[in-house]
Amino acid sequence: MSYDDQNIFAKILRGEIPCHKVFEDADTLVFMDIMPQSEGHALVVPKAPSRNLLDADPAVLGRTIAVAQKVAIAAKAAFAADGIVITQFNEAPAGQTVFHLHVHVIPRYEGAALRAHGGGAADHGKLAADAAKLKAALG
Amino acid sequence: MSYDDQNIFAKILRGEIPCHKVFEDADTLVFMDIMPQSEGHALVVPKAPSRNLLDADPAVLGRTIAVAQKVAIAAKAAFAADGIVITQFNEAPAGQTVFHLHVHVIPRYEGAALRAHGGGAADHGKLAADAAKLKAALG
Repeated sequence: MSYDDQNIFAKILRGEIPCHKVFEDADTLVFMDIMPQSEGHALVVPKAPSRNLLDADPAVLGRTIAVAQKVAIAAKAAFAADGIVITQFNEAPAGQTVFHLHVHVIPRYEGAALRAHGGGAADHGKLAADAAKLKAALG
Repeated sequence: MSYDDQNIFAKILRGEIPCHKVFEDADTLVFMDIMPQSEGHALVVPKAPSRNLLDADPAVLGRTIAVAQKVAIAAKAAFAADGIVITQFNEAPAGQTVFHLHVHVIPRYEGAALRAHGGGAADHGKLAADAAKLKAALG
């Protein structure tokens, strides 16, 4: 299947809808997942269009994972997390819901289960505060 | 915490214990997960030592994800999967059980739930056949 530029992340990248932004450079945007599976759940999104990892330019994927690594390290510190899960879903049967490549960086906390992927939306004040915390930790 | 070279993937990399090998180059080894969460579950493992993504050399991580992308594309074809999940766990509270960086490439099939991470070991004949199938698809 081909890339559809009407997906919600494409709209965020074009500035048509807002996000709780953490980081941006020429190639990559990082923002908070509005339906976080845990406190501090962020998304790393390349600006270049691809449906997912399966059709991504390897150079784009490389830059995306480099940013994801920095975000993971920063998130562990910012949220005093006990661990970090990285997930990336390809196609709907694998759990993909937005068809623009993105990498989930999900803090884990000892004894706390993850909330379901695509569960409820978090409070926007909380997401803004978490974005600020993560941005500060990224330096 | 520092890297412990007695972990099971370090032993596989040194050839001290066997694996169902799919691919190897100077930097990376790919083999089947012996406790697969679904048919075709493979692991992409850099040869350079790091505990996980949090302490990995970014260049090593980049080469690892490049191989993971190729394995994901090949696995989707080899196993006629409907999707692919990429997961990577950092520290025990996040589900990490072997403390050498590795990326899971997990085929998903419409209507089939994943088995638990670290559930039962698969039949070795089946794993060898799956490794051969994935190797052929990688070309």
